[in-house]
Amino acid sequence: MNNPRELLLAMYTAAIDAASAARCLPAFLPAPPENGRTLVIGAGKGAAAMASVVEGHWQGDLEGLVVTRYGHGADCSRIEVVEAAHPVPDEAGRAAAARMLRMVQGLNENDLVLCLISGGGSALLALPAEGIALEQKQALNRALLKSGATIAEINCVRKHLSAIKGGRLALTCVPARVVTLLISDVPGDDPGIIASGPTLPDPTTCADALAILRKYRIDIPPAIERHLVSGDGETPKPDDPRFARNAHHVIANAQQALEAAAQVARAAGIEPHILSDRIEGEARDVGAVHAAIARQIAQHGQPFKKPCVLLSGGETTVTVRGKGRGGRNAEFLLSLATALDGCPGIHAIACDTDGIDGSEDNAGATCQPDSIACAERLGLRARAMLDDNDGYGFFSALGDLVVSGPTRTNVNDFRAVLIL
Amino acid sequence: MNNPRELLLAMYTAAIDAASAARCLPAFLPAPPENGRTLVIGAGKGAAAMASVVEGHWQGDLEGLVVTRYGHGADCSRIEVVEAAHPVPDEAGRAAAARMLRMVQGLNENDLVLCLISGGGSALLALPAEGIALEQKQALNRALLKSGATIAEINCVRKHLSAIKGGRLALTCVPARVVTLLISDVPGDDPGIIASGPTLPDPTTCADALAILRKYRIDIPPAIERHLVSGDGETPKPDDPRFARNAHHVIANAQQALEAAAQVARAAGIEPHILSDRIEGEARDVGAVHAAIARQIAQHGQPFKKPCVLLSGGETTVTVRGKGRGGRNAEFLLSLATALDGCPGIHAIACDTDGIDGSEDNAGATCQPDSIACAERLGLRARAMLDDNDGYGFFSALGDLVVSGPTRTNVNDFRAVLIL
Repeated sequence: MNNPRELLLAMYTAAIDAASAARCLPAFLPAPPENGRTLVIGAGKGAAAMASVVEGHWQGDLEGLVVTRYGHGADCSRIEVVEAAHPVPDEAGRAAAARMLRMVQGLNENDLVLCLISGGGSALLALPAEGIALEQKQALNRALLKSGATIAEINCVRKHLSAIKGGRLALTCVPARVVTLLISDVPGDDPGIIASGPTLPDPTTCADALAILRKYRIDIPPAIERHLVSGDGETPKPDDPRFARNAHHVIANAQQALEAAAQVARAAGIEPHILSDRIEGEARDVGAVHAAIARQIAQHGQPFKKPCVLLSGGETTVTVRGKGRGGRNAEFLLSLATALDGCPGIHAIACDTDGIDGSEDNAGATCQPDSIACAERLGLRARAMLDDNDGYGFFSALGDLVVSGPTRTNVNDFRAVLIL
Repeated sequence: MNNPRELLLAMYTAAIDAASAARCLPAFLPAPPENGRTLVIGAGKGAAAMASVVEGHWQGDLEGLVVTRYGHGADCSRIEVVEAAHPVPDEAGRAAAARMLRMVQGLNENDLVLCLISGGGSALLALPAEGIALEQKQALNRALLKSGATIAEINCVRKHLSAIKGGRLALTCVPARVVTLLISDVPGDDPGIIASGPTLPDPTTCADALAILRKYRIDIPPAIERHLVSGDGETPKPDDPRFARNAHHVIANAQQALEAAAQVARAAGIEPHILSDRIEGEARDVGAVHAAIARQIAQHGQPFKKPCVLLSGGETTVTVRGKGRGGRNAEFLLSLATALDGCPGIHAIACDTDGIDGSEDNAGATCQPDSIACAERLGLRARAMLDDNDGYGFFSALGDLVVSGPTRTNVNDFRAVLIL
């Protein structure tokens, strides 16, 4: 490895490869049904890539429809791929969700539904429950994304306003068997949370959804309040007998991606330490804690000897207060760089494994010991830009963005802090 | 060790002992002056304990005055001990600061001033600069403490509104030599930040102080704005030749305390891992990150094998949004417990090493795997109480507060997360 940035980028690439459908999916394909049809459905940033791998390996007939994000499509000949908007749903996603629901109606018990789920599916498969307008769901979604709510909380709300999420899609498939393959982008890999679990039962309730909206002081339109208070939005629960024949498998997750990055580090003679595959919290505070641990290593050789690399996954949140640009990975990294304040020998990368950090065109960014000093020479004040949530602006000016384009998988954030 | 809570409490006790004046101070006492007087001055939660140790070891005459927090006094026969209010200054502190300034006027170059500084000294040694009312400083102080500003930021503001901080006390001692002994309660142990550095030069400026007040949207009274804009509040800088003969020593810090706790763990057969002595950030997010690392250990045996204990120091902050009671350690711990959500085998303690968490009567608290479940049986909802910043209420109801009383030292937060 010629330089630290190259090593960090190689770790990121290895993390994505390890979580790709091509690598992970084939081993989990069920046997084709003997006397029934196979329908492939799905949603998420990796859904088209997953569908393409299914087509390449499936023995027998199949047909189907998957929804992915604009730009995340992949070549499929038998499964239709629809692209739609993320993170705020649009009409393309709504129409595809409605068609998907119709497609799985009237199946019989010999049929198989193969459901391909990955992160982003929640926004892509947006079909409001009866009586709720898409615009209302969109506005609520925007408010939730800005509020600092966790992804589990956001998805709990989404499930109870949807005609398809929280197990409703699987209910429509009854009596066919549903096998769900999931690429997990949620801390803890709970399959019912990934993409709001359209084919999995849901332990959360309408009351939980209401409490979350109130907690973050989100304006609740009357139609939505009625829907939640009346219980019309209630989801099928885990003991529902109609789910008994179904199965699900998490085929890729953050831990696999981190382990792959660890292998790259080890091969380069750098000892890897996986802190956690499920770190949550405000991106700036998570950055400050990573910085504090990195400084301890640099100064005291604790809890690890250098050279080493700290790896972590999970999903941070950004409570937007400023007017800058950038996703949670840029925010994490700018906070880390600010807290390190030029501490020698520490380099880092933070990228979304889906290739898109928030709603920008970058996957994330890298930083190095002189990032803050270089920025100052350009007239940029790191702390002020962090306060303005302008991580994208900061790393863009330094030429340190990581631009990978859509990776067609999604196991959430990838962070590596290299202490030399 | 009979049980996990007992082990955690023993680690906390060892941490405090390792940072006590009795243990740390004697080795750093300078030689008495040959032909001059010795004046002992100082401020902080440990100032009276430090003065008492000086009296016990000093060869020769001495006299002086130190200010400590109400309830943190210690027996001294030659050095006067004044108690005053913390964290919001009061008249007792103001009067003591004014007397201290007068006491060190008119010294000669043979005299020695021994200055005993520890955390809390910043609020205890509050003497507003000319033209600024104590009430204005108090109001600003309260607003800063609630704003989420870091302690370095709060102290930068304090230094530029003070007649005694940021090196001004040492300027008054000129031409006497000043030796400052410090117990560090600040992440990174920068001696100029501890108690706002009354005897140390200050690299920060009036412009920095203004920027901090604006960043946190604090109302700035006109008199204070004039003082900062005019440069009247400027502090002596590090290249000031009048500081050339002075010396300072950090005699105790978080790292020493953590190392002592690590010894206790090791003796109990539990491998200790010091994550960092300088963790900063919102207490709830820092708690979430500790929980994520603990879960990784429990689930994957990474980055450490269990049984082990994670140790960390530093100073978190709480941005108060709710109406509950509790300091940053209770908030950290409630967030940790909430994120762990009953994960088996994980116990933790979080306490302030000064014995007082925020403005309550406890040092902190402990939690265990069934804390959340026990609370639910009492009708308490952990997440709602965290949102209300009510860590004290939560752990008080469970009987899990740690009440040590004032420890008369202060090396900041102490956290231990035990994974069995």
